[in-house]
Amino acid sequence: MNVNGQAYRTIWRDGATLSVIDQTRLPHQFDTVALHTLEDVADAIRRMVVRGAPLIGVTAAYGLALALRKDPSDRGLQFATSTLIATRPTAINLRWALEQVIDEVAGLDPEQRATAALAKADQLADQDAATNAAIGRHGADMLRTQWQALGRPPRLNVLTHCNAGWLGCVDWGTALAALYQAHNQGIPLHVWVDETRPRNQGSLTLWELSRHGIPATLITDNAGGHLMRAGQVDACIVGADRVTARGDVCNKIGTYLKALAAFDNGLPFYVALPVSTIDWQIEDGQAAIEVEDRGSEEVTHIWGRNDAGALTRVQLAPVGTQAVNPAFDVTPARLVTALITEHGVVEANKAGVASLRPKVEVVKRVL
Amino acid sequence: MNVNGQAYRTIWRDGATLSVIDQTRLPHQFDTVALHTLEDVADAIRRMVVRGAPLIGVTAAYGLALALRKDPSDRGLQFATSTLIATRPTAINLRWALEQVIDEVAGLDPEQRATAALAKADQLADQDAATNAAIGRHGADMLRTQWQALGRPPRLNVLTHCNAGWLGCVDWGTALAALYQAHNQGIPLHVWVDETRPRNQGSLTLWELSRHGIPATLITDNAGGHLMRAGQVDACIVGADRVTARGDVCNKIGTYLKALAAFDNGLPFYVALPVSTIDWQIEDGQAAIEVEDRGSEEVTHIWGRNDAGALTRVQLAPVGTQAVNPAFDVTPARLVTALITEHGVVEANKAGVASLRPKVEVVKRVL
Repeated sequence: MNVNGQAYRTIWRDGATLSVIDQTRLPHQFDTVALHTLEDVADAIRRMVVRGAPLIGVTAAYGLALALRKDPSDRGLQFATSTLIATRPTAINLRWALEQVIDEVAGLDPEQRATAALAKADQLADQDAATNAAIGRHGADMLRTQWQALGRPPRLNVLTHCNAGWLGCVDWGTALAALYQAHNQGIPLHVWVDETRPRNQGSLTLWELSRHGIPATLITDNAGGHLMRAGQVDACIVGADRVTARGDVCNKIGTYLKALAAFDNGLPFYVALPVSTIDWQIEDGQAAIEVEDRGSEEVTHIWGRNDAGALTRVQLAPVGTQAVNPAFDVTPARLVTALITEHGVVEANKAGVASLRPKVEVVKRVL
Repeated sequence: MNVNGQAYRTIWRDGATLSVIDQTRLPHQFDTVALHTLEDVADAIRRMVVRGAPLIGVTAAYGLALALRKDPSDRGLQFATSTLIATRPTAINLRWALEQVIDEVAGLDPEQRATAALAKADQLADQDAATNAAIGRHGADMLRTQWQALGRPPRLNVLTHCNAGWLGCVDWGTALAALYQAHNQGIPLHVWVDETRPRNQGSLTLWELSRHGIPATLITDNAGGHLMRAGQVDACIVGADRVTARGDVCNKIGTYLKALAAFDNGLPFYVALPVSTIDWQIEDGQAAIEVEDRGSEEVTHIWGRNDAGALTRVQLAPVGTQAVNPAFDVTPARLVTALITEHGVVEANKAGVASLRPKVEVVKRVL
């Protein structure tokens, strides 16, 4: 997407030099970092210079390719793999991406491995961008239809929660992909961006949208319901961390409250996701998904930029405050208007989700 | 209530010197501030040195008295009144309290006005404390009934939003009065305290409750819906800035979202208020109440305590971020289980609210 008029992905390469956007400085500062070695890549993942499940996976795949340029032996492959897995041990997507590269190169002669790994990493990056572009096209169709039905108003107000944007992917994002594509098609959007406490990922969303030229306004997580009642929201669109076989949506904490408000005001509530996000094994998300509690400090303290421009942590709550900090909630399918995937838009119910299953099998065979 | 073992009200006077607790420093620092003039008072209300509908009302009443010491003419009275109303135009209590003083002094000779106004402000302060104690007794009855109906569980989990505590009143509070009285009666409470962005008044609530010995846990505004779905909330109780003749509740931004979640989970949602909060002139709160927008900076920046212990402001959002910051929302009466007032508990509908009217007339005559 565009940053001040220039098109970027979150990760790109020039020959054997990998570059990424330094996301530890965002949204306050835009820097890029060159990564030359396995160690550079491992460090970037560990320090969250790159973040977001799809981007971590692709970055790790490139890290393996860089390692194989130096040591293409079986032992080198094994060492690089375990080094990369150790950076974020719970990231399923990272393991999946490494497996894709290993499957590709393990049977080759060592001297062929680096080139093949690099090509595979490129393919994974392109695949991620293509998936998200497809989500965006389907999402933009929904928004355009609504905009036309409303009589092409001078602005279509869309509310989003958290950051389901290109910064966590290679390009486009999921929920925000729909906004980018709609904007690129000339639909006059304005986006209400939920702050998304406690980690304030709304700031990243605001940064993304503004840099691409989409008008966006930051609001507290408390404000969206009021704006809906006041007729200032036309639709909501969010991403998902996990969607169940009946269409329940596990997403960033607070999503459920916005879905309730959208329902209460007769507004569409869309969830955008790659089909890889669907957990086919479970139906009742509230009962089946154990929600991670991330502890007190994310709530009681916050990082920001002080008057001197330095990133600083301040304490918001009284000394000794205990906080409970669930990272996700589960929005029941009944509150979700539609699921927007790379294979099209389906209803958030068993039949809708099941209709995506054959397409997943095909995709797996193609990969 | 007690602060470090000493009993305080939020506002008190010694002769013509008015003192208040500086709530802009809480919960990190406990300071009191002396207010000598109309300008001091208007500034204190505007900057939220004092906050909360009843306290704003009593403070404004004292402000009028201080102004009349300087200029007791009709023009002086008029100027002071309009100055004070302009500080927080949505605050119905402020207008009500000013009317009480004006009714008392308008017919007097100018030289008698200041003394009479001061006495009237004292009376309003005492009345507020008594009113809130009564709200607390009725609210505690509701909580005790529910606790008994649930089989006297080892903890009754109550969620509250913003700060409807003694810090927002002269003493006791409104919603929190019910918690203080229930706790004093031996009902084992645990309170989920919404952070309440953007001004994080939840920290004040947490500070208050902790000092009174009531177990309390801070949560983000996003988390309450999830906790309700997870069965960890038994009831919600909040205050109100304005209640309409049909029971719509205008309260701190985000209240509506919690009411929706309580309704969706079959949980009681109580609103505690003095009857002075009722606006008898309007029914449809969403249509009739103009909600104050408090501007970008409260959202994009925040005050906290840095590692060195100093209060510091940090910027959370990217440079140039525009934020919209509505201070209140309107919860429709259909989502409110009951209104808890100093005159008893009524249903949130026309008949319920109307049943309070005769009592208000009596109170007005007594005053």
